[in-house]
Amino acid sequence: MARRSRLSRNRNTAPAQVPASPFIKRTLPFFDVLDEAQLEKLEAQVDWIIQEVGIAFRDDPESIRLWKAEGAKVDGDIVRAPADWIRSLCAKAPREFTQLARNPERSVVIGGTNQVFAPIYGAPFVRDLKGGRRYGDMDAFRDLVRLTYLHPNLHHGGFVTCEPCDVPVSKRHLDMLFAHMTLSDKPHLGAITEMSRAQDSVDMAEIVFGEDVMEDHCVIMGNVNTNSPLLVDKVVTEAARVYSSRGQGMVVVPFILSGAMGPVSTAASVAQAMAEAMMVCAYIQLLRPGAPFVLGNFLSSMSLKSGAPTFGMPEPVMSNYAIGQLARRAGLPLRCGGSLTASKIEDAQAAYESADSMHSTMLAGANYVLHAAGWLEGGLCTGFEKLIMDADRLGSYQKVLGDGLNVSDNAMARDAYGEVGPGGHFLGCGHTMQNYQTAFYEPALSDSENVESWEDGGSLDMRTRAHARWTQMLADYKEPPMDPAVREELLAFVAKRKEELPDAWY
Amino acid sequence: MARRSRLSRNRNTAPAQVPASPFIKRTLPFFDVLDEAQLEKLEAQVDWIIQEVGIAFRDDPESIRLWKAEGAKVDGDIVRAPADWIRSLCAKAPREFTQLARNPERSVVIGGTNQVFAPIYGAPFVRDLKGGRRYGDMDAFRDLVRLTYLHPNLHHGGFVTCEPCDVPVSKRHLDMLFAHMTLSDKPHLGAITEMSRAQDSVDMAEIVFGEDVMEDHCVIMGNVNTNSPLLVDKVVTEAARVYSSRGQGMVVVPFILSGAMGPVSTAASVAQAMAEAMMVCAYIQLLRPGAPFVLGNFLSSMSLKSGAPTFGMPEPVMSNYAIGQLARRAGLPLRCGGSLTASKIEDAQAAYESADSMHSTMLAGANYVLHAAGWLEGGLCTGFEKLIMDADRLGSYQKVLGDGLNVSDNAMARDAYGEVGPGGHFLGCGHTMQNYQTAFYEPALSDSENVESWEDGGSLDMRTRAHARWTQMLADYKEPPMDPAVREELLAFVAKRKEELPDAWY
Repeated sequence: MARRSRLSRNRNTAPAQVPASPFIKRTLPFFDVLDEAQLEKLEAQVDWIIQEVGIAFRDDPESIRLWKAEGAKVDGDIVRAPADWIRSLCAKAPREFTQLARNPERSVVIGGTNQVFAPIYGAPFVRDLKGGRRYGDMDAFRDLVRLTYLHPNLHHGGFVTCEPCDVPVSKRHLDMLFAHMTLSDKPHLGAITEMSRAQDSVDMAEIVFGEDVMEDHCVIMGNVNTNSPLLVDKVVTEAARVYSSRGQGMVVVPFILSGAMGPVSTAASVAQAMAEAMMVCAYIQLLRPGAPFVLGNFLSSMSLKSGAPTFGMPEPVMSNYAIGQLARRAGLPLRCGGSLTASKIEDAQAAYESADSMHSTMLAGANYVLHAAGWLEGGLCTGFEKLIMDADRLGSYQKVLGDGLNVSDNAMARDAYGEVGPGGHFLGCGHTMQNYQTAFYEPALSDSENVESWEDGGSLDMRTRAHARWTQMLADYKEPPMDPAVREELLAFVAKRKEELPDAWY
Repeated sequence: MARRSRLSRNRNTAPAQVPASPFIKRTLPFFDVLDEAQLEKLEAQVDWIIQEVGIAFRDDPESIRLWKAEGAKVDGDIVRAPADWIRSLCAKAPREFTQLARNPERSVVIGGTNQVFAPIYGAPFVRDLKGGRRYGDMDAFRDLVRLTYLHPNLHHGGFVTCEPCDVPVSKRHLDMLFAHMTLSDKPHLGAITEMSRAQDSVDMAEIVFGEDVMEDHCVIMGNVNTNSPLLVDKVVTEAARVYSSRGQGMVVVPFILSGAMGPVSTAASVAQAMAEAMMVCAYIQLLRPGAPFVLGNFLSSMSLKSGAPTFGMPEPVMSNYAIGQLARRAGLPLRCGGSLTASKIEDAQAAYESADSMHSTMLAGANYVLHAAGWLEGGLCTGFEKLIMDADRLGSYQKVLGDGLNVSDNAMARDAYGEVGPGGHFLGCGHTMQNYQTAFYEPALSDSENVESWEDGGSLDMRTRAHARWTQMLADYKEPPMDPAVREELLAFVAKRKEELPDAWY
């Protein structure tokens, strides 16, 4: 009985501080930027890469064996295959699937017209207004998990909200998993950097959810990068064997700066990203047909002056729009974009770039958005203020996507024109009184007062207001309830594994 | 001969500092957010307002006389008319038209798939990092005209880049017109606040362009607000009689904060804006069929806490998308949106709100965008740094709209895959070397360096970099050449009119 479903034991009432808006159900139409000729040209390029160029599956004889056994054309570690076959394998992946959260009210549906926002992933540094820039540690990690849990506009916990650099690399996944599983009840990802760490992630998820639930449901996902161009290393295939073989989700992400890991062309980079991710999707469907898969990509541009990555620029904006359309044609859930910037601080550059990046991510229909909040320095640094500022803006995107344009009879407000004549105002009319409370998104961090009121309040800029807000949120934080027996079992697992593992710092 | 075409005399070579990119020719598809049922419901509401509710044409017996003579149903000053008739009048306005600049290389085409960006209009205050916040004056005004002239991403000068509060209200239009006409060679607007000022604007334009050119071409436009809700005062109709009767352009702009000047509903506010602007368009087409017209609107939301206007929020984002589609259905050139914010300074709030506002303006297909750069404090303040930061971002939108996604054979870069294998890089390959220089938009103000380089450079935020940039631009500024005789005639006109006019400060 210990391994049976534990979902009911986690089904606690959510604290009032976390509104119940588990993910976005989009009603806004998609933005299709490509015509049929453009789509066919891009898809022909994808097929050409799969059939003629091939993708290397390196340092992993087991994946090569499977490809050979299934009839792919394998030359050394380069795998080529008929594109029709790869596409038919990809078609076995679900168009949408549910990732359960330990609190079922927070479960998310990924794919289709749904959109799910998660925070930054993988930054070694953190920064905030008081503490400045420093290496990430477990204290910062836990606070970031808490803030993600508390914020209504973040639907998913992600995983490496910052690198906890005070814990050995070999063990930190255990502390990170324990933090996500206990400090939040939102869904999250697991570790992928080594096969045993992926296995620990799945094992700990099993403690939370129970074996039977896990058999039929996605409760955890791994997010992996291919080694673009055209290279899939064993981190990817090993993680797939742990997660996918167990029916858990995999997000597979070519990271391509056009001109470096792909040609200096947005179209070619988009096609390459599709080809790389689809080959891994096909491999996963060979492991377990129907395993949840998210076609990820991370496409951006470079500075011509220095070769440094740039973000929020027109090329990645176009790549977001284009890959959204291609992913829908392929019938695969999509991860792309985020609130991305090359800025080092929470200034106007950070906000302009993040907004253009995220606005296009939103319209592109990205189903799962890592890096939706908190990103600074091209992803090297998690900003506490940036996290809260970005998340505040996510509420605006949520409203655009979810509500679209309401043209109900009430929205047309014809009665109001009986009350208000030419040159009058609608401030006190019946329709306004009945509707004003839900009419507008109310951001927490935008100041719309006049200059005198703003000066009376201390002339605070947005990041200063953001600092006050996240510190107050943490002060008010209450841990979501969890069955003490589950918590004990998780603790025991972490302790045992820490005993078994060496301290390794690389 | 003095009144004949002077265009050829102004046809000087543009200084190298102003690249020749006179406006955006969009290749990106439009983003249509509304389905047929939504469109029909909104258009039925527009028709209902025109036919049943009516629009007041107040304090202007001449416009009422014309409406009566043409067969509209007039009740006091409220004009109602068959919607079919109003729509057939609107159909006489051109779908696109050219506004000539005195330098023909800067002429813009407004309407259709073209998009034209202009700076902020009408702020009484200015601010910059060194000088702080202060009333606008002619020195600031001239500098803003110079910067607009110099910036390649601003295609049109607008008009009141700030209010020059050191010149009497009765005379400042003369100084503003002279500044636009001599310090820049881009197209611009004229005055509208009183009929005689509109006439001065058209008369000065005639000095620059000559009578014959003006007969057949739009060389100046007036931008007017209706008094929403449902009220057109004589400022609008008198300006129309000056500009439109002469074949010059009119931009007519309902300014609606939902819940105040329109119902607390985005859909109802959008329909009301369409109805108000279309009634003025119809009036203009009665004055002169085929007169250039831009359907303007300025729709936003309010803070529920204070009733203060908010910008860059989901409701105006949706209104931009929706009105773009409605304007295309009506066949009318559109003005909407801009880089709008309620922030008092050039912080992250200003940038987030401006970017979301402008991203939706861009995708909405707005043909003429006032306030594309420089706006702070809900339009009360022109920011010098904000102008340059916004304008830098406009280059990104220009590239997205103009280029779309290039899928040419060169863009597919198949040869590059012969040079670069799995895990390699494209940095030095032939395709990269041949294409990198034009591959990416290169912003002037985004810093993409690593944190060490950025710190070595003084840890400057974007607005500090923007300050350095606009001061350097002004230092390098050279006045575009102008026929000395035209300049003399303009000066004499200004002097004569200043003699005739009283000093009035309100």
